Amino acid sequence: METSSTENAPWLTAEEQRLWRAHLEVSRLLMYQLERDLQPFGLATNDYTILVELSEAPKRQMRMTDLATATLQSKSRLSHQITRMETAGLVTREGCPGDRRGLYAVLTDQGWETLRQVAPHHVRNVRDHFIDRLEPEQIASMYEALAPIAERLRTLRGRG
Amino acid sequence: METSSTENAPWLTAEEQRLWRAHLEVSRLLMYQLERDLQPFGLATNDYTILVELSEAPKRQMRMTDLATATLQSKSRLSHQITRMETAGLVTREGCPGDRRGLYAVLTDQGWETLRQVAPHHVRNVRDHFIDRLEPEQIASMYEALAPIAERLRTLRGRG
Repeated sequence: METSSTENAPWLTAEEQRLWRAHLEVSRLLMYQLERDLQPFGLATNDYTILVELSEAPKRQMRMTDLATATLQSKSRLSHQITRMETAGLVTREGCPGDRRGLYAVLTDQGWETLRQVAPHHVRNVRDHFIDRLEPEQIASMYEALAPIAERLRTLRGRG
Repeated sequence: METSSTENAPWLTAEEQRLWRAHLEVSRLLMYQLERDLQPFGLATNDYTILVELSEAPKRQMRMTDLATATLQSKSRLSHQITRMETAGLVTREGCPGDRRGLYAVLTDQGWETLRQVAPHHVRNVRDHFIDRLEPEQIASMYEALAPIAERLRTLRGRG
């Protein structure tokens, strides 16, 4: 939309606008592409993210509330997701003896094995679509630029 | 997941990994935050994107297939979306006399007015959450890095 600026929100300059659009496009197209790359394995991107989180956690298990925070999902959305993954045999839900604070999601052996098989393909795709298209200096400088933005958005989200 | 590299997919280095995670986090958290910022106006991010596309098109209208491509949605998903936006009075669907190739989505006066009111808030949020947190050199260099990635992903998507 071409329109005049307002008192409080100066319109984006041409340079800002093209970066913003490139960022949006890369975000959306990468999600789409990675989702499509995972389809042959019967996994959605969200499934993959959960498998990774659990695989890196002590005893390959996480409290549901922590997993929701780590994967940036609402608790109710995560709960549905975990139900689907339980049906697929990738995770189980378990109470923890002596811990009344609630349920854990636990990676099953099958979930671990699935991740072990899929991870190299996924990494290949992440390289093809993103990482290998950047020079080492770009990798460093983009991280420097994005890290504080991610940090602030995480804080905002936590307050929500 | 900590695991060994495979022949074909060298594992991400620590520097690559932290960039990849920062990128994913910024993508997801920004989508979440912008969605939340639009809620008071009764719009989803997708609605906003469609309003912008139509506002910039000649006669404020676009062929449905072109709008699907521009907004990176499937035609069926776009069709549902346009139905909802039609109910809200933001767009109409119109056939084009002399053009059998199909339906157009047309921005209504109410859709235009809605965009005119919401856009300054949205731009304010894009600045707060992203653009104003970058130095001018970062804006330039991030665009240089992302533009070819977006370009390639667009081509891949087109072939899908």
